[in-house]
Amino acid sequence: MRSVIPDYLAEALGDVESDTSGQLADYIPELAEADPDRLGAVFATVDGEVYGAGDIDTEFTIQSISKPFTYALALADRGFAPVLAKVGVEPSGEAFNQISLESDTGRPFNPMINAGAITAHSLAGPEGMNPAERVERVVRGLSAFAGRRLRMDEAVCVSEMEHAHRNLAIAYMLRGYGILTEDPRAVVEGYIRQCSVLVTARDLAMMAATLANRGVNPLTGERVIREPVVRQVLSVMSTCGMYDAAGDWATQVGIPAKSGVAGGLIGALPGQIGIATFSPRLDAHGNSVRGVSLFGRFSSDMGLHVMEVPAAARAIVRSNHVVGGGGPNAVRVLQLQGGIGFAGAERVVREAVNTAPEEVRVVLDLTMVYAIDDVARRMLLEVVRRLTLDGHEMYLVDPESIMPDPDPGDGGRVTVVTDMEQAVFSPHTVAQSGSRPTKRET
Amino acid sequence: MRSVIPDYLAEALGDVESDTSGQLADYIPELAEADPDRLGAVFATVDGEVYGAGDIDTEFTIQSISKPFTYALALADRGFAPVLAKVGVEPSGEAFNQISLESDTGRPFNPMINAGAITAHSLAGPEGMNPAERVERVVRGLSAFAGRRLRMDEAVCVSEMEHAHRNLAIAYMLRGYGILTEDPRAVVEGYIRQCSVLVTARDLAMMAATLANRGVNPLTGERVIREPVVRQVLSVMSTCGMYDAAGDWATQVGIPAKSGVAGGLIGALPGQIGIATFSPRLDAHGNSVRGVSLFGRFSSDMGLHVMEVPAAARAIVRSNHVVGGGGPNAVRVLQLQGGIGFAGAERVVREAVNTAPEEVRVVLDLTMVYAIDDVARRMLLEVVRRLTLDGHEMYLVDPESIMPDPDPGDGGRVTVVTDMEQAVFSPHTVAQSGSRPTKRET
Amino acid sequence: MRSVIPDYLAEALGDVESDTSGQLADYIPELAEADPDRLGAVFATVDGEVYGAGDIDTEFTIQSISKPFTYALALADRGFAPVLAKVGVEPSGEAFNQISLESDTGRPFNPMINAGAITAHSLAGPEGMNPAERVERVVRGLSAFAGRRLRMDEAVCVSEMEHAHRNLAIAYMLRGYGILTEDPRAVVEGYIRQCSVLVTARDLAMMAATLANRGVNPLTGERVIREPVVRQVLSVMSTCGMYDAAGDWATQVGIPAKSGVAGGLIGALPGQIGIATFSPRLDAHGNSVRGVSLFGRFSSDMGLHVMEVPAAARAIVRSNHVVGGGGPNAVRVLQLQGGIGFAGAERVVREAVNTAPEEVRVVLDLTMVYAIDDVARRMLLEVVRRLTLDGHEMYLVDPESIMPDPDPGDGGRVTVVTDMEQAVFSPHTVAQSGSRPTKRET
Amino acid sequence: MRSVIPDYLAEALGDVESDTSGQLADYIPELAEADPDRLGAVFATVDGEVYGAGDIDTEFTIQSISKPFTYALALADRGFAPVLAKVGVEPSGEAFNQISLESDTGRPFNPMINAGAITAHSLAGPEGMNPAERVERVVRGLSAFAGRRLRMDEAVCVSEMEHAHRNLAIAYMLRGYGILTEDPRAVVEGYIRQCSVLVTARDLAMMAATLANRGVNPLTGERVIREPVVRQVLSVMSTCGMYDAAGDWATQVGIPAKSGVAGGLIGALPGQIGIATFSPRLDAHGNSVRGVSLFGRFSSDMGLHVMEVPAAARAIVRSNHVVGGGGPNAVRVLQLQGGIGFAGAERVVREAVNTAPEEVRVVLDLTMVYAIDDVARRMLLEVVRRLTLDGHEMYLVDPESIMPDPDPGDGGRVTVVTDMEQAVFSPHTVAQSGSRPTKRET
Repeated sequence: MRSVIPDYLAEALGDVESDTSGQLADYIPELAEADPDRLGAVFATVDGEVYGAGDIDTEFTIQSISKPFTYALALADRGFAPVLAKVGVEPSGEAFNQISLESDTGRPFNPMINAGAITAHSLAGPEGMNPAERVERVVRGLSAFAGRRLRMDEAVCVSEMEHAHRNLAIAYMLRGYGILTEDPRAVVEGYIRQCSVLVTARDLAMMAATLANRGVNPLTGERVIREPVVRQVLSVMSTCGMYDAAGDWATQVGIPAKSGVAGGLIGALPGQIGIATFSPRLDAHGNSVRGVSLFGRFSSDMGLHVMEVPAAARAIVRSNHVVGGGGPNAVRVLQLQGGIGFAGAERVVREAVNTAPEEVRVVLDLTMVYAIDDVARRMLLEVVRRLTLDGHEMYLVDPESIMPDPDPGDGGRVTVVTDMEQAVFSPHTVAQSGSRPTKRET
Repeated sequence: MRSVIPDYLAEALGDVESDTSGQLADYIPELAEADPDRLGAVFATVDGEVYGAGDIDTEFTIQSISKPFTYALALADRGFAPVLAKVGVEPSGEAFNQISLESDTGRPFNPMINAGAITAHSLAGPEGMNPAERVERVVRGLSAFAGRRLRMDEAVCVSEMEHAHRNLAIAYMLRGYGILTEDPRAVVEGYIRQCSVLVTARDLAMMAATLANRGVNPLTGERVIREPVVRQVLSVMSTCGMYDAAGDWATQVGIPAKSGVAGGLIGALPGQIGIATFSPRLDAHGNSVRGVSLFGRFSSDMGLHVMEVPAAARAIVRSNHVVGGGGPNAVRVLQLQGGIGFAGAERVVREAVNTAPEEVRVVLDLTMVYAIDDVARRMLLEVVRRLTLDGHEMYLVDPESIMPDPDPGDGGRVTVVTDMEQAVFSPHTVAQSGSRPTKRET
Repeated sequence: MRSVIPDYLAEALGDVESDTSGQLADYIPELAEADPDRLGAVFATVDGEVYGAGDIDTEFTIQSISKPFTYALALADRGFAPVLAKVGVEPSGEAFNQISLESDTGRPFNPMINAGAITAHSLAGPEGMNPAERVERVVRGLSAFAGRRLRMDEAVCVSEMEHAHRNLAIAYMLRGYGILTEDPRAVVEGYIRQCSVLVTARDLAMMAATLANRGVNPLTGERVIREPVVRQVLSVMSTCGMYDAAGDWATQVGIPAKSGVAGGLIGALPGQIGIATFSPRLDAHGNSVRGVSLFGRFSSDMGLHVMEVPAAARAIVRSNHVVGGGGPNAVRVLQLQGGIGFAGAERVVREAVNTAPEEVRVVLDLTMVYAIDDVARRMLLEVVRRLTLDGHEMYLVDPESIMPDPDPGDGGRVTVVTDMEQAVFSPHTVAQSGSRPTKRET
Repeated sequence: MRSVIPDYLAEALGDVESDTSGQLADYIPELAEADPDRLGAVFATVDGEVYGAGDIDTEFTIQSISKPFTYALALADRGFAPVLAKVGVEPSGEAFNQISLESDTGRPFNPMINAGAITAHSLAGPEGMNPAERVERVVRGLSAFAGRRLRMDEAVCVSEMEHAHRNLAIAYMLRGYGILTEDPRAVVEGYIRQCSVLVTARDLAMMAATLANRGVNPLTGERVIREPVVRQVLSVMSTCGMYDAAGDWATQVGIPAKSGVAGGLIGALPGQIGIATFSPRLDAHGNSVRGVSLFGRFSSDMGLHVMEVPAAARAIVRSNHVVGGGGPNAVRVLQLQGGIGFAGAERVVREAVNTAPEEVRVVLDLTMVYAIDDVARRMLLEVVRRLTLDGHEMYLVDPESIMPDPDPGDGGRVTVVTDMEQAVFSPHTVAQSGSRPTKRET
């Protein structure tokens, strides 16, 4: 059997192929001479599978798609406060060639416009790096996102530098405001080198998948950035990534995205996939015409919109029953299932409160639970603690250790076992959390 | 045992209670005379549970929090195209008292600013409604979101109308552009009545929960709006809901939200909960000071940020094994688990492709699956169809009918059974989709 | 002999007649149905002569040309400070349909845009006037500028009021800022009545001539406004009168001007003439196409640009000589000529200093002087005073009493006579200013 | 006797001396270290007299006061069209540190803001000049305005260049739009050299007087620029010279002006004087605090406002009488006086029309006329021509040849004589213009 996904991608490409509207970027010869008919699309899953169709291994320059990643590197290398002091997070509602600095401070509105991206470039790497070292740090960082060593297109570098008047204007303006503290020309040169990095649609999908995978490259397993940085970058992409069409994109596509003038376009669905398309003709906003069409289709066909409300999950509490007869040996069992976040944990809490079990022994059975996030963990442990304080003996059936660090805290106590048998038939216990830390018993 | 959630809310309120910064809205006496110390917070789950702490049953005027709901009503009553023609979806990046019309068409930037909200009010109800009918339609709509009949504060209506100069200015401007087609004064009066609807924090949480629950009120079960409208409203809230602090909110809180000048603040987490807070003192942006603090805390404590990447789910494919021995009776079983969306379905596809099963009979066991969305359904059925075409006999074990309409389409064929026994021991079948539609066998 | 000026005007009209570009204003039927081919031009001199060609007695509505005159009335009726507090004097550089309020105070940028003109209307007449009285005060004022009782076009009033959405928007906005303090609708209605006043090109030229004639209507002799108001109005017309083409107009035409949407256009050259043209087709700025052409031609043909540097005047000091022989009876005579302002007076001062006359008796002969302004008067009297202090006997020959109040002040003394004979042959005098005020001797 | 003007200036300086408000420019050490108490004022008349008080020979850098003069040089060297294509003439209504480029073309709004001034610098001298040659051309041009060879402050040049980030930003932006076509850094360096030219208040007054004197330096007699350029420069100074206080200045002072950050301030009254003040402390607009006060006083004390309506001139027609008795030898004499422009000529035309003289011989006596501008000349000659056609014999008494080229044109004929005797007693003539050109008879 062949996978259905490449077929789907091929079909999608076929549907947009005939759209030859839009124009190549033409401010430098290297972009103006690109093959306008190139067309490719790639899905990269958060566990590293890659599906593609069309021109997915053709190299082109990354251009503005480098912006969210370099912003991520700046946040990672300098921390949030110093970066936020110099680059805002507000959408500018303006075209990509606007300056958009805050009128008093000169702080660029956000890192997705050139002023903010140039500033973010200057903040990549530790303070005191020279321009060449910083370029190396950025290229190394972009390569870590892509999972392979990327290289620059030197001809594009040279050509962009010759047409960098506007970026130089921006950089000098930033220097005037003290947002940049170095030679503006050197920063612009570094930024242009960053934009001249060569990538394929495959690379871009993997870079997006790294964002979708909490900052860990699904291919190499390398943690490129920490989760708070991922969240920040995805948030900014979602409000500022598509220039002045931000609202249209947010409503109609709803995937945090970023486009580049060479025809690339990426999107990252948290926890799901990274997507990349490549088609060089641009619309009036500077976004790839066929790329925008493809993303619209992907979002609609696959329910990938971030505001898509997921189908109501089946009850997290699979069953609430008593085993072991009606006598003193009766055991109350709450059998849970699925992935448990705040909303799921709330149901468990509610069940426990409503049940007000008479049985001394209460079991939370996690056998059919496949994930539990931090807030859910804390809430379940609080249930355990409170039931302990109400006089119950608490058991956690957790054969796959899905619950990390099962310490219910002050006054709570729980026995962790690997199957229901152990919970139902074990002798009663008396130890308390605090005096003797609960141990996972296997 | 008492639920942990009210305790959590009470603790959160306690932490912000001492913050008495900010100012009451004072443009009308009714707001200026509000009790500034009121403080409440409510969580309403998508299945109708309500947790609250503090002043959760105090009535106050809904004000701008009515905006996303009336926008929803307009979209529901008129359809997307007529509404989008008159109200945009772009963040304005401007303060709440700006006019923010597109310079050529006069179209308001978005429905969360007054110009857009006044226009949205005029689009609620079918065309041709008179102003009084429209107000009734809006109040009925807001009531449906809240799950109880809401009423207006007539004193506030009168007072607001006396201070409605700016809204009248906006309405006349909109009338000049042909965005409004009726008497501007009547529209403003209707809009003011909409804003004067009295709600409690409990109501607001339920209204938000209705958005979080795909448009179905969790309390009454009434479908108030369809899902595409929900998605549109949540998207617009996420980019335009918090005035000129949109980017800060999107990065730091990440919950689609809307605030009102009487001190209300709501947030809706798709598929999870609706949240409301009430505290009348406002910051310079016109947002409740303590409300903003509380949302920041809720987002951070509970991982409620929309860009939060969920923990990697346990493998959707729980097991891939052969039962029935190695001979011709061998049956390949793919046991799935959890909620399956695109990303999960992709894993199943991948497993099927990689396995290239030699066994004739292949079973997809959905017993431990608790949800499956539309794209996943189509992908799984395509797997079934392709395996059929490769000569396999396909079985779906689906005891709870989690898979709706299990027709694999042209050339595909599947037998749906309720337990594994039936799949493994049933006689071989030959019927094909198309000649004889697959029936769910129970 | 026929005057050359009507011929010149007729020729100028003939040259622009074939230009049928531009569009009639069409926002109300009354304007849309105007005869687009109407064409007229009038010159009115500051002493009341009127020259015209073409349609100079056709009535049309004054529209925005009422703005500078109503601004003048407001300044006259309320004084400068209260008016400047509510209407600025800065060019907005924006089109005529912009709101252009200062962002913090809501103060309109200037009285030539609608917001400022509506505000100025509300400031005409003493505080406390009701709207009807104010309209009467404005019409009476405009009539005083025109020199005949003007009346309103009631059909236009009604029609404009039906299409007054934008002006109502502006007025409500101004009310919101407290710039207007009355019912915005009543103010707009009054403003519309002001704009609906019917005038002819002849009227407009006379209104402009009243500005050019220091505020005195050349026809009726009535002082309509004081000189400081004239200066203020002309200054504002020169920087803000022609909407967003202010700079083009200032450089190329250089005549303080104002246009109206019904096709009128006026200009006022201080001290020289008032000009009006009438041709209803408008350019994109809302100015009469042929009117703009005519003004360009008038300015260039007749050197009427306010920055035109006048030809260097012949020496103010016509002669500096001694009469009466070389002995003790010798008299030093400075014979002056022309109109004397600061620059002319400076030459007299210089001549007096350089001459350092040895003769006791010094005569300033004003016989050929035809005007002397205040600063020149003060400077000449200071020369007189200083020469008195140096021991000279001073005479002023002033047969036409061109020098008002010839008191040289502390320590000065002068004998005013009507012919040179009296100065040369009068007996020596000794009286001093201060002890006995100098009297004009006739 | 001492001149009253230095006394007046000294008194004016005395009155503002105690105002120590405002701040020194401090963006470079050279300006920050200036003596803040320096204070001087100079009047330079259009015939070269200079009056001063205070620090009038202290050198400081010209800074932005160079802008109107370099703009004049660009207009002179390249012509109007190429300069207007690259620099507009519209007030920007914005602060001096705004970029203010037209959004589509990148054309700076006007030459008084930095963007326009940098562009104007690049347009000084013929096309193809290298930067060093252009600086020399500009310094030579500024020197011609001042009447002495000016030099640069090299330390200020170096320091400004180190702090030129904003100007470099502007220049790169202009280069991006193609407004600049050369290396932006070289242009900025040239512009900075222009701004670093050292001047005294005396120099500045003379530069302003050159503008007031139709472009001819009153001291050296050199024609620096032609009159149309003067008019253009004065117009632009009047609307754009004082940054965002343009309207305040135009109404309250009404003198075309320009200020510099080192404390200089100039004003030019067409046909009258050039004024300069020097006082280094600046207000929030970047204008000299005490300089602004002084100009306000000069304008008010001396009636120097350009919108000041001059006192009504005495009748241009001094007398209209018949000499030579009532018979066939009677001669009609129109005795004119003063300076005659359009308005004066109109009176003569009117007199001639109204008189409808019966006498054959008509004399225009120009003996007491001291100036006649071109339009007046043409109008008077047309009167002559028409009266000739009506059968009159025309005489011009013009002892000082005040009427250039007295040819009345087709069908006209005039005899020019030097005294009335010749006109009254000369034999009748019959020659006609056309057949035999009228000659000036002496």
